[in-house]
Order: sequence, then structure tokens, then C-alpha cells
Amino acid sequence: MRDAFHEDLQTISERLVEMTRLAGSAMARATTALLDADIALAESVIRADVELDSMREELDALSVDLLARQQPVATDLRMVVISMRMSADLERMGDLARHVAKIARLRYPESAVPADIRATVLQMGQTAERIVAKAGSVIASLDADAARTLERDDDAMDDLHRELFGHLIGGSWSHGTEAAVDMTLVGRYYERFADHAVSVAHRVVYLVTGEWDTGADHEDDEDAATRPVRPGRR
Amino acid sequence: MRDAFHEDLQTISERLVEMTRLAGSAMARATTALLDADIALAESVIRADVELDSMREELDALSVDLLARQQPVATDLRMVVISMRMSADLERMGDLARHVAKIARLRYPESAVPADIRATVLQMGQTAERIVAKAGSVIASLDADAARTLERDDDAMDDLHRELFGHLIGGSWSHGTEAAVDMTLVGRYYERFADHAVSVAHRVVYLVTGEWDTGADHEDDEDAATRPVRPGRR
Repeated sequence: MRDAFHEDLQTISERLVEMTRLAGSAMARATTALLDADIALAESVIRADVELDSMREELDALSVDLLARQQPVATDLRMVVISMRMSADLERMGDLARHVAKIARLRYPESAVPADIRATVLQMGQTAERIVAKAGSVIASLDADAARTLERDDDAMDDLHRELFGHLIGGSWSHGTEAAVDMTLVGRYYERFADHAVSVAHRVVYLVTGEWDTGADHEDDEDAATRPVRPGRR
Repeated sequence: MRDAFHEDLQTISERLVEMTRLAGSAMARATTALLDADIALAESVIRADVELDSMREELDALSVDLLARQQPVATDLRMVVISMRMSADLERMGDLARHVAKIARLRYPESAVPADIRATVLQMGQTAERIVAKAGSVIASLDADAARTLERDDDAMDDLHRELFGHLIGGSWSHGTEAAVDMTLVGRYYERFADHAVSVAHRVVYLVTGEWDTGADHEDDEDAATRPVRPGRR
């Protein structure tokens, strides 16, 4: 019985890693679609999101089934409960990639991203890809030290988010309100994507260190948005 | 044993209802703080959020403890797992109220809300209060029909969100980029708040009808933002 249980746990872990791969690919493609006004790519990201949704459903059904059949305790129980939280994070990351792709689609054939902030948005996309790839490695390795390094990538994302808001409200924005609305939302989507990746990493840390802390959801750094680089109304 | 178990479940249900009350109160006060530029009220919302965070931690610890001690199956197991998801929704709703309060605090002594959209923001706040109050009733009553009515309140929120975006990108926005950024974020916070309340209601429906559907997270209606009332760039 225990062996079957640990095989199931291994399956869950592998599926979670696969979810990080899909979420990372979705955000990478959404970023390209956004920057290049690539409608076909945007559509493919939007369509593919159901895959992450159904992976989460299958994983959670498997987890609940495991709880009912095997009635795990201690670390095994924690592993199952935490897996369900991770799958929720990863499914949500897919939603956020889809949101980015939808903005790309809405503004087609134009790019939603004004030229002077393309570099910032590109870096946000790259940071998102990097952080979710690391989250995948950390799920596979259960390496708490590696998990803690995701904080640094999240700090990098927060810096980029602040940079983006500096452009928006620094007083020199010349791209109109609609582009400002788009970039506000896009900035928030990338930031939340990184937050969920950090939540995944936190959950690994708690799993490994044995400290049960359900408050391991990463608080989102809305201060990046509400505390601009240059404060004050124009 | 079973009686103790059901007493614990009742405790969890009552605590969840209390969380809806706190989340509703937080969003009501955040809305007032935002509209009236009331810094003391904003600060109180920001401070109080830790209460919801720790309620979630306690609830989840109790749930995991219940799983380990009682090893419930079938409906009982589903109830515990779903309760953990609800506490996550409600904790997040508290975060969103805190975000609104932080924007109020940031713009003090001015109000972040331009005069011509005060009515819309007020209605978003009232809709948020109503929907979370209903979520609380539904947790207490486990009434699936009542739970389904939250969709209508969520539709009302989506309409208000569209109205807000109509102001923002309709071409007549005269309040500058910073206010546009603030209102974009505020609109998103209210919309997400309602989405989480609907998720809570969906979870009750699945609990009562016995259909296990882990996809019961309510998808957020980002289309309210990305599909404006009047399309096209200015």
C-alpha cells in the first residue's frame, strides 16, 4: 500500500513540474505575442489554457482520492495538501498568461506596448519565465535552499514593476490613457505570476523544513504599483 | 468520534462565516476610505488584515489536524478540503480590501477617485459588500439555490467594471495617467473580490450537489477590462 502511495505522490510531483513547464511556455508566448502583436500566438495561448485547467482538476481529483484511500498522516498528508495548493497556484499562473495574451489580441494589429517600455516588458516576461522554471526545478528536487533563491527573482520582478510604473506616472507618459490602462494590467499580471511562483517555492520550503505554515501564500507586492518611483500627482 | 468531528466541522463553518464578515467590513471601510480620503480608516483596514490571515492559518491547521485524526471519507472529506479552499478565497478577499485601502492612503489628502466616477466606485463597493454577505449566508445555510444567485451580483460587478473602463478609455478622461492607473487597479481589486466570493458560492454548490469539481474557482472576467464599452484606440 505505501509503495503505491509513494508512486502516486511521484506522479503528482511530475504532473506539477509539467504544469510549471506549460505555465512558463504560456507566459513566454504571451510576452512575444504582446510585443510583436502576433495574433496567432496570442490565440494559441488563450486556447491552450484549458490544458492547465484540466491538469489541475485531474491532479486534485487524484489528491482527494489519495486522501480517501490511503488516509496519509504527517509528512505524507502535508505533501498531498500542499500539492493541491501548488496546482491552484500553477493553474492561476496559466490564467495570468492568458490575460496577457488577451491584451495582445485586443490591440492587434498594433502592439499594446509603447516602444519606450518594450525593454521593461520584455524583461518582465523573461523574469517570469526564469522564476517558473526555477519553481519547476524546486518541485522536482525539493531543495529548500534553491527554493529560497526565488525571492531574488521576485525582487527583480518588483523592481521591473516599479520601473514600469515610473514610466506610467513619471509625468512623461505620452501614449494616452488606453495604453496606460493596458500597461497597468500587464504589469500586475506579470507581478502576480511571479508571486504565485514564489508561493510554490515557499510551499516546498515548508514541506522540507517541516514547518507547517499555511500562510505560505506569497503576499503580492502591490506596493510596487502604489509606491511609484516618483511620487505625487503631476 | 464522529460527533466530535461534526462539531469541528461546525466550528470551521462558523469561522468561515466570520471571515466573510471581516472581509466585507474591510472592503466597506476601504471603499469609504477611498472615496472620502479617510486616512485613519485606510490605516485601520491595512492593520486589520493580519486578523484574516491568522484566521486562515488557524482554520487550515484545524482542517489538516481533522484529516489526520479523523481520516474522513466521502462528503466529510470533501467538506474539509473545500473549507480550506474557501479560507484561501476569503483571506485573498481581505488582501484585496487592503490594496484598495493602500491606494486611499497613498493619495491622501486627496481622494484617488475623480468626481465623475465616484458613483461607479461607490456602487462597486456596495456590490462587493452585498456579494460577500451573501457568500456568508450561503456557507451557513448550504443553500445551493441561494449560492447560484451570486452570479447575478457578479454580473452587476462586471457591468460596473465595464462602466469604469468606459470612463477610462472612452476618450474623455481628463484626470491624468496617475488617476487612470489608480482606477485601473481599483477596478481590478473589486472585480477580483467578487470573483472570489463567487468561487466560495460555487464550492458550496459542489458540496451540496455532490459533484466534485475542482475547477470551481471562478474565472476572473478580465474581459470586462480588455473589452471596453467603446473599442479602439483614441
